[in-house]
Amino acid sequence: MRELMVNLGERSYPIRIGSGLLARAGEQLLQAGLSVKSPLLVVSDDAVAPLYLDGLLEQLRSSGFRAASCIVPAGEPSKSLARFEEIMTKALEHGLDRKSAIVALGGGVVGDLAGYAAASYMRGIRFVQMPTTILAHDSSVGGKVAVNHPMAKNIIGAFHQPSLVLYDLDTLKTLPRREVSSGLAEVVKHGLIRDATFVDWCIDNAERLLALDAEALGYALYKGCAVKADIVSSDETEQGVRAILNLGHTIGHALEAVAGYNELHHGEAISIGMIGSAMLGVQLGAPQEVYLRTREALGKAGLPVSLPEHFDTDRIMEAMMHDKKFGEGKMVFIVPTAIGEVEIRQDIRQQWVRDIVERLKREASWP
Amino acid sequence: MRELMVNLGERSYPIRIGSGLLARAGEQLLQAGLSVKSPLLVVSDDAVAPLYLDGLLEQLRSSGFRAASCIVPAGEPSKSLARFEEIMTKALEHGLDRKSAIVALGGGVVGDLAGYAAASYMRGIRFVQMPTTILAHDSSVGGKVAVNHPMAKNIIGAFHQPSLVLYDLDTLKTLPRREVSSGLAEVVKHGLIRDATFVDWCIDNAERLLALDAEALGYALYKGCAVKADIVSSDETEQGVRAILNLGHTIGHALEAVAGYNELHHGEAISIGMIGSAMLGVQLGAPQEVYLRTREALGKAGLPVSLPEHFDTDRIMEAMMHDKKFGEGKMVFIVPTAIGEVEIRQDIRQQWVRDIVERLKREASWP
Ligand SMILES: NC(=O)c1ccc[n+]([C@@H]2O[C@H](COP(=O)([O-])OP(=O)(O)OC[C@H]3O[C@@H](n4cnc5c(N)ncnc54)[C@H](O)[C@@H]3O)[C@@H](O)[C@H]2O)c1
Ligand SMILES: NC(=O)c1ccc[n+]([C@@H]2O[C@H](COP(=O)([O-])OP(=O)(O)OC[C@H]3O[C@@H](n4cnc5c(N)ncnc54)[C@H](O)[C@@H]3O)[C@@H](O)[C@H]2O)c1
Ligand SMILES: [Zn+2]
Ligand SMILES: [Zn+2]
Repeated sequence: MRELMVNLGERSYPIRIGSGLLARAGEQLLQAGLSVKSPLLVVSDDAVAPLYLDGLLEQLRSSGFRAASCIVPAGEPSKSLARFEEIMTKALEHGLDRKSAIVALGGGVVGDLAGYAAASYMRGIRFVQMPTTILAHDSSVGGKVAVNHPMAKNIIGAFHQPSLVLYDLDTLKTLPRREVSSGLAEVVKHGLIRDATFVDWCIDNAERLLALDAEALGYALYKGCAVKADIVSSDETEQGVRAILNLGHTIGHALEAVAGYNELHHGEAISIGMIGSAMLGVQLGAPQEVYLRTREALGKAGLPVSLPEHFDTDRIMEAMMHDKKFGEGKMVFIVPTAIGEVEIRQDIRQQWVRDIVERLKREASWP
Repeated sequence: MRELMVNLGERSYPIRIGSGLLARAGEQLLQAGLSVKSPLLVVSDDAVAPLYLDGLLEQLRSSGFRAASCIVPAGEPSKSLARFEEIMTKALEHGLDRKSAIVALGGGVVGDLAGYAAASYMRGIRFVQMPTTILAHDSSVGGKVAVNHPMAKNIIGAFHQPSLVLYDLDTLKTLPRREVSSGLAEVVKHGLIRDATFVDWCIDNAERLLALDAEALGYALYKGCAVKADIVSSDETEQGVRAILNLGHTIGHALEAVAGYNELHHGEAISIGMIGSAMLGVQLGAPQEVYLRTREALGKAGLPVSLPEHFDTDRIMEAMMHDKKFGEGKMVFIVPTAIGEVEIRQDIRQQWVRDIVERLKREASWP
């Protein structure tokens, strides 16, 4: 088992990564200071629950906890105020008190939803994450929790740190292949931002990762979490440096906004976005290698590195202009200067970005 | 104009109390660091809006602000997730960004609702309170914001401090008489907890207060806020000493829970609750004067000091057992030991409380 402390003063918490962790969940919760006197509520989705919920509930009960559950439909639409209210109702019916915890068993959707519920119930109770996707390594650090509004993603939320993250690698075995690659996009992103050696490692170990080799996955998730934790610790409420975590996300979010339903998963969209950022970096003076290694790392992880022709450039640009990351009309972009290094640029011209989007469609022939 | 700083480190903020403050709202917001580049959303209710909203919006616009509004029905049922979602929609439609503020123009209902919206929109934007009730002096300090769930009051919320509180005494002139007395209950409570001299002052100035004399009101609200601010500063997230603010609320909440609709306002319920707490205090050894002065202060403010006969003691006791303030089966009670002094007692027997409830029905003949 690997353990990483996320250092946030009195809100610090451990992330434990390893095999067989769910089978020891009760003991872990007790160790984290939770009391069997206060009931727990486990939130999961209807794809994850049939696989792991019963086992977890049984385990928690055998440790003396009273644990109820709330199952939402799998998928992004469950990040809604309606599901949030459902969780509140369950929490009240089950008698959760100020010392209770809400446990998220699932991917980033369940984590964000259950986390916002924990942030709000009685103005904040404890929150425990048990991530079951690779992408959720990203959401398990940083304390951002939220639901969506029909008009905007993640717009209703809070900063609420978990008390404990239990990452059981065994659960990842049932993850669909496309979700595996999508999650690896954020892993690679964390390397591209801060750690060139880790990018090399990702390229060398891509096959082991795609095969869900527990040793390789454990290391990759640990490194991904560590980079993010380091950045978040120095900027808990996203005032400054934390913005570098948005590498690839400016273009990526715009692609998600204009893509057809299920056409691009989040990790796929930001993969293309990171390729675009690398192109921009090279254009602004970074060595050619930045682009080549970025493409290699993402491509080997089974991710798209070019944009399908049918995406409309105008619509992508429009979506970008609506993105909340554009303060006061200027274009803020995270741009790599080397592998493992990025800078926040406030001076990116729309025309440059438009050119990049066009180039992404002919990526195979670029540069 | 009086000013009070609520000291909470980097979350400190000023409460300004005086006449004509709404007419200078724009300048006050600019001074608090808000920018005209980011739109504002003013939340009010349909009793307050016809009186003060247009004037405020015009004032804000004349200072260069873009300000939209969202009007909810007057009354407690507006503290709901449905109204919360409505505010989110308005905020998005109106383009509120991370530097925007949500302004609450109204009583505690509008303050709690708009405050929770500000706490949640984009994971927290600025919040400005413009209280128009006396009771709202209480909610303008402490940062507690929330909406209700059909099963429980204030159960969905956050701690979110305002950036500024503008208390325009002129708005209080239209407050219905019953709301005036109800608000004075919390003013007197703050005296009973911490400041015997202020209790004397309240008794001596009750008539001026009921007549809404601006000088008297300004002083009373200032003192009420100051006591609460002092307690909150030392315990921002309600871990310990802040519990003393619940004087009268254990019984009061139970009375509200069993009372018919509109039979008891919050201030009336806690007035009876504070009489009960004083009885308990005397029973536990406090001087008789504690009870007599408490009754005098509340009675002179136009508040009920006894319990109507038809209230069922069993139902009141049951409601108290459900109150979230009872941790782990024990009865926690705030009990006065002198005028201006209270203690947190963990050892209060249910039978004592039951006796007090019975006595409250024959209060006129007690002791
Ligand atoms: N809070 C943050 O900081 C943060 C960071 C990144 C992403 N997110 C959010 O995370 C969400 C995406 O997360 P995600 O990709 O984990 O999505 P997800 O939770 O929807 O999971 C993806 C799919 O995989 C299924 N699944 C999950 N675990 C499984 C398992 N072990 N076996 C089989 N199937 C499984 C789910 O049911 C779902 O259908 C987005 O809503 C995004 O906004 C949040
Ligand atoms: N957040 C906190 O710390 C805190 C503390 C105490 C109370 N509260 C909450 O505050 C709420 C009660 O506050 P309230 O008593 O101000 O209730 P309120 O906001 O409902 O106001 C009472 C009534 O007076 C009307 N009104 C308000 N201002 C007026 C004016 N100037 N002229 C004419 N009519 C006016 C309102 O429309 C309403 O009908 C409760 O929901 C309670 O939970 C919160
Ligand atoms: Zn992402
Ligand atoms: Zn009160």
